[in-house]
Amino acid sequence: MTDILLRDDRDGIATLTLNDPGTLNALSDEMLAALARQLSDIAASDLRVVILRTAGRAFCAGHHLRQMQAMRQADDGGAAAFADLFDRCAAVMAHIRNLPQPVIARVHGLATAAGCQLVATCDLAIAAEDAKFGVNGVDIGLFCSTPMVALTRNVGRKRAFELLSMGLMMSAEEAVTAGLVNRAVPADALDDCVAYYAGHLARKLPGAVRVGKDIFHAQAELPIDDAYALARDAMVANLGDPDTAEGIQAFLEKRAPRWTP
Amino acid sequence: MTDILLRDDRDGIATLTLNDPGTLNALSDEMLAALARQLSDIAASDLRVVILRTAGRAFCAGHHLRQMQAMRQADDGGAAAFADLFDRCAAVMAHIRNLPQPVIARVHGLATAAGCQLVATCDLAIAAEDAKFGVNGVDIGLFCSTPMVALTRNVGRKRAFELLSMGLMMSAEEAVTAGLVNRAVPADALDDCVAYYAGHLARKLPGAVRVGKDIFHAQAELPIDDAYALARDAMVANLGDPDTAEGIQAFLEKRAPRWTP
Amino acid sequence: MTDILLRDDRDGIATLTLNDPGTLNALSDEMLAALARQLSDIAASDLRVVILRTAGRAFCAGHHLRQMQAMRQADDGGAAAFADLFDRCAAVMAHIRNLPQPVIARVHGLATAAGCQLVATCDLAIAAEDAKFGVNGVDIGLFCSTPMVALTRNVGRKRAFELLSMGLMMSAEEAVTAGLVNRAVPADALDDCVAYYAGHLARKLPGAVRVGKDIFHAQAELPIDDAYALARDAMVANLGDPDTAEGIQAFLEKRAPRWTP
Repeated sequence: MTDILLRDDRDGIATLTLNDPGTLNALSDEMLAALARQLSDIAASDLRVVILRTAGRAFCAGHHLRQMQAMRQADDGGAAAFADLFDRCAAVMAHIRNLPQPVIARVHGLATAAGCQLVATCDLAIAAEDAKFGVNGVDIGLFCSTPMVALTRNVGRKRAFELLSMGLMMSAEEAVTAGLVNRAVPADALDDCVAYYAGHLARKLPGAVRVGKDIFHAQAELPIDDAYALARDAMVANLGDPDTAEGIQAFLEKRAPRWTP
Repeated sequence: MTDILLRDDRDGIATLTLNDPGTLNALSDEMLAALARQLSDIAASDLRVVILRTAGRAFCAGHHLRQMQAMRQADDGGAAAFADLFDRCAAVMAHIRNLPQPVIARVHGLATAAGCQLVATCDLAIAAEDAKFGVNGVDIGLFCSTPMVALTRNVGRKRAFELLSMGLMMSAEEAVTAGLVNRAVPADALDDCVAYYAGHLARKLPGAVRVGKDIFHAQAELPIDDAYALARDAMVANLGDPDTAEGIQAFLEKRAPRWTP
Repeated sequence: MTDILLRDDRDGIATLTLNDPGTLNALSDEMLAALARQLSDIAASDLRVVILRTAGRAFCAGHHLRQMQAMRQADDGGAAAFADLFDRCAAVMAHIRNLPQPVIARVHGLATAAGCQLVATCDLAIAAEDAKFGVNGVDIGLFCSTPMVALTRNVGRKRAFELLSMGLMMSAEEAVTAGLVNRAVPADALDDCVAYYAGHLARKLPGAVRVGKDIFHAQAELPIDDAYALARDAMVANLGDPDTAEGIQAFLEKRAPRWTP
């Protein structure tokens, strides 16, 4: 395990900690590779929930700008390297969306540019009240076009365009109203709140959570009839799980289910 | 008319009452069939508005779990019967979306799982302040995948995933904020508020309401240029109605329109 | 320049003023033609921001109903002329979406029907607190089907259907909550607030704003993987701008960027 990404598995919950505080946890080449590796490993595991958090005073300030400037030395001025970088970054975002486990972002401090994209991409997000959110690359001349993709799937058009074009920062409370974040809590209650969510999710029937997350993002982008066909198949698969049969039976008999441990 | 679904037509308004309080108005085979029958009949009528309400202490708690468990006796463990059930349920939801008349959900008590899907599917929803909403099938091991389709077309992604995966219940006030419900009113004002909405809609020019509802849900899922082409054709059709010509003329002459009764 | 549409260019900001207060700035044939002309001219310019405002007591009350009634004299009762009118109107809306520059609606008084569509279509909207919004054509028998296309890309389904079918008016504060408007400010602060937004946008790197706006609306309607491919190409193009290289370098060196004036 590389130092810039820590992982701790406990009680079915994997906690990934971006650990490069000197760069405000930039999504460097190394960080993206480490995330891809850990997400693949978690996908193949029987872990139930993932918490994504970071070390230091900021959540994540986006891409590693020094590495990007160095890419300009190539003959094409960096174009191929930039395209490859954004493809690798989008692949990590897709990995989070497609992970069998729900991913909870634990946000403190700044979440800007691709750091804000990471929050938007996670299934759930809990933020400290003093966290700040922005897609303010425009301030240095680089519009947050890739973060925009994730942002506009959480936040309404007018608000999203304002954040992107004006470079405004948003408070945690505003992020809740905008739909980017589920809860804003006092900083000293952040870990407890995240632990509550993760523990609660970890106690659900894993197969049910997986079958639901599997189609959650995909169905939202399909024509409604296609979405219903996908959801029907998910329901049928879910009902084929013996633990689900037991869960329903237990409910009908007003008793606790006896699920496979 | 079957006992489990009551219908009362008055002043152009059809009131459908799910009347199976012993099952919390479950969407049983019989209930789905009765709904399909009544919706077909209403679609072919000149009724103007539909109110969907229920009897007893809950709005609707979703599918009929005992019937579903019985389906497991089949050779395939119920897979074919389950698929058929969700297709029939999705067809009822499509029927509501495609009905020429606007459908108002009148919600009191619990609206959970497919009951919450029903609220999400109706064009408008008015709830009692003490109503509760949830897509909490995950609690018994059955993720609310089909309700998710309707829910995510009303409610933002972060909030929707939280409701689905955590099994949280939502108050009526939260449902308004989330976009699932139009108004939350004191329980003793619920019928008056629903009657106000229904009466107001029933006095609009029926052809105009029909032409609008006809494309409302469809255009929202199309690329914007295709949506505009659909809307243009709707406008031209609407303008071809002599009552619309009269409505515009009356407005220009600052008088009340003389519409076909 | 025609009298019904004024244009003033200053400090990189084009201010378009719909100037037909006698018709509440109706989108007449002449107004649509004048808008198309000015938007084409602005698109080809190096202007950075557009403010869309209107003269008189209302923002815009939609189509020119007298002109529309006159179209009924044609052999087909006006059908071809109506279709052409809505195509021209949708083309103006597309022009605003596709304009390289961000467009800010400055809204006072009434914004109804296609006037509300105009607000929904602009990238940003700032409203006076006493402004009123409605898509209430249904009240005269003409459902606001074309405004619905723009409205439902800003406002949730339940709220949008309520506005369209009930003909309800919405306050500026409600429009902010609904997602139609960015800010509601006291009427006597409206011009200052709009000037703040426009000035702020005009000082951003124009190439960055253009590359971002260019894909903002398009990517929101694409499957997410296609959206990311579009955004990747936008990022690469943006990074190829020497001013962006300078902007990033300046940020890394903690100094102000020296951008091409």
